[in-house]
Amino acid sequence: MLERFKVPEQDRVYVSENNIREATEAILRHSGVPAEEAASSTDVLIKNDLRGVESHGVSNGLRRYVAEYGSNALNPTPNFKVERETKTTMTVDADGALGIHVGPWAMQQAIDKAKEFGMAAVAVKNSGHLAGCGYYAMMAAEQGMIGHCMTAGGALQTVPPFGSKPVMGTNPIAWAAPARNMPPFLFDVATTQVANNKIGLAGRIGADIEPGWIAGLDGEPILEPIPAPKIGEFYSLHIGGTRENGSHKGFGLALMNEIICNELSGFGSGPVHGNPGGHFFQAYDIEAFTDTEKFLDDMDSLLQYIVDVPPAKGFERVLYAGLKEDEDEKDRLANGIPYHREVVEWFESYCAESGIECNLR
Amino acid sequence: MLERFKVPEQDRVYVSENNIREATEAILRHSGVPAEEAASSTDVLIKNDLRGVESHGVSNGLRRYVAEYGSNALNPTPNFKVERETKTTMTVDADGALGIHVGPWAMQQAIDKAKEFGMAAVAVKNSGHLAGCGYYAMMAAEQGMIGHCMTAGGALQTVPPFGSKPVMGTNPIAWAAPARNMPPFLFDVATTQVANNKIGLAGRIGADIEPGWIAGLDGEPILEPIPAPKIGEFYSLHIGGTRENGSHKGFGLALMNEIICNELSGFGSGPVHGNPGGHFFQAYDIEAFTDTEKFLDDMDSLLQYIVDVPPAKGFERVLYAGLKEDEDEKDRLANGIPYHREVVEWFESYCAESGIECNLR
Repeated sequence: MLERFKVPEQDRVYVSENNIREATEAILRHSGVPAEEAASSTDVLIKNDLRGVESHGVSNGLRRYVAEYGSNALNPTPNFKVERETKTTMTVDADGALGIHVGPWAMQQAIDKAKEFGMAAVAVKNSGHLAGCGYYAMMAAEQGMIGHCMTAGGALQTVPPFGSKPVMGTNPIAWAAPARNMPPFLFDVATTQVANNKIGLAGRIGADIEPGWIAGLDGEPILEPIPAPKIGEFYSLHIGGTRENGSHKGFGLALMNEIICNELSGFGSGPVHGNPGGHFFQAYDIEAFTDTEKFLDDMDSLLQYIVDVPPAKGFERVLYAGLKEDEDEKDRLANGIPYHREVVEWFESYCAESGIECNLR
Repeated sequence: MLERFKVPEQDRVYVSENNIREATEAILRHSGVPAEEAASSTDVLIKNDLRGVESHGVSNGLRRYVAEYGSNALNPTPNFKVERETKTTMTVDADGALGIHVGPWAMQQAIDKAKEFGMAAVAVKNSGHLAGCGYYAMMAAEQGMIGHCMTAGGALQTVPPFGSKPVMGTNPIAWAAPARNMPPFLFDVATTQVANNKIGLAGRIGADIEPGWIAGLDGEPILEPIPAPKIGEFYSLHIGGTRENGSHKGFGLALMNEIICNELSGFGSGPVHGNPGGHFFQAYDIEAFTDTEKFLDDMDSLLQYIVDVPPAKGFERVLYAGLKEDEDEKDRLANGIPYHREVVEWFESYCAESGIECNLR
């Protein structure tokens, strides 16, 4: 994540992984989520925070989820309905589950099927926020497979090339693959120039938005740096940004995501129906294609080749997706996760009001 | 494709689909390709030309292929070896086949397996140029499935963010999906700012290259418009272009492509070994996930929603990937394909020299 999105030093409170995990689980249980699912849901958010993806950790997510449980927009005790199933596919109605609730279960179904049949995918509809896609892709990599995940992240937020009105959401995509000694490949991005949650983060820490990242409510790309607007006061732009810079490529990726997450899942078009967006989880068994040991060695050679590329003038080193995330995870496991004090204060006040014991300092 | 890449009106020779198809097949047969494979190889190039993807049709491709057959860099009568196979996967050594030779066969294997088991993929190594990925993804869409194709398009051509030397190729990706009455979704792009073949096309027609599309041989992005350089005199940039504009997203996509096409196929790392790049063909059976009739209706609603978006100031309409390609195909089937006269002259001189009958005018 860009430096500008990091919590400024003077506002940081370092919290140990264990303490933030316990507090988050307790808050989800207090919202009615059973203990086991509270733990697996929490793991998604904490792994995101550990990996430096704090845009999709507890800071932006948890208070929203608590509010959605409180208003019954989410179902804390869903009954997943398998609507269709073959040896390699499954389509699931999540019964109003939060994405981080159904996601780990659904990805594991894909992994288990892929182990038996070479590859598999699970499409999920009728579910809430997934908190990015990287966690789920990494579940496969951690089990020796290639993982892929997408979610049609809401609708009517992102303006297509040549258009004046938004059609799709931020439609994030992720792939992950293991290596032997090098940190795994973990590619996890919105198909917009920047994730909405990052605009929220930038707002909290007073950082500017880069030219070509977002559009005004008239759909025109904003081509100078501006302070982060609030959600609802801007539209997103697809990867590429402006039409001249190839935003049709980002738009096409987002549309692929929409078609697979919403149409293939049977959920129906996000922009037409205004549905909150389906999810898609896929796993490839490496051994079904090639020798896994050779694959892991080849991955090491490839990733080592990349980090050995001489940096361009003014830059320190060449990264691949997943490298910095792995370094962040090691650092944060040892030294704690740097949260904005405002986030820690929210935890403390929520816990005090709800009679939950929570120890973050 | 951008207007600047189109052949200028005064240089156009309109050739009927049938005439260019017959000439291309004859030239491939003359290179030693058996009649059936000459016809299926030709179909890839002609469909690209019909769909307006002339960067990946006969103009740039055929003379290169003829030269590669002539120097025995390609095998015109390959014996495909299935190295590994499961119910849903297949890994194939193409025995030096041209990509357009093995590609239609490999994609059909994926489609046939997906029909039986819900989804499937075929990885191919030891093969030449694929001529883009869109044709193969569309094979699945034409058979009522979602298609996906990638090829690790060469190595050491594209500079990663923060790097000074190239690592990967143009690593194109494609997805296609059918609709009921609307033209199908067909998303087919390089994961670079612009395909190398388009730089070649721009050179032929004297068009400029946009800022942020390519880098100099020092790896620095070129940020002003310049005349198209020759292959070998520039490096490509990943989707996004500059580091500030998110080229890490294009780089991550390219790396996903490299990992699946080269490492998962068992071919080994493109940049490390300098291999010409593996291919990957995948199909999803819609009926395995949802009701196909509902899917086709939902696709129509979605695609209609997009074309109904009011255009931004100065633009005529909003397009989705595949719409213009479908319009071009209808137009070119009726009125002929506009080739640069220099391309037609190459055909005529090659045919004359080789004693092949060819009638293009």
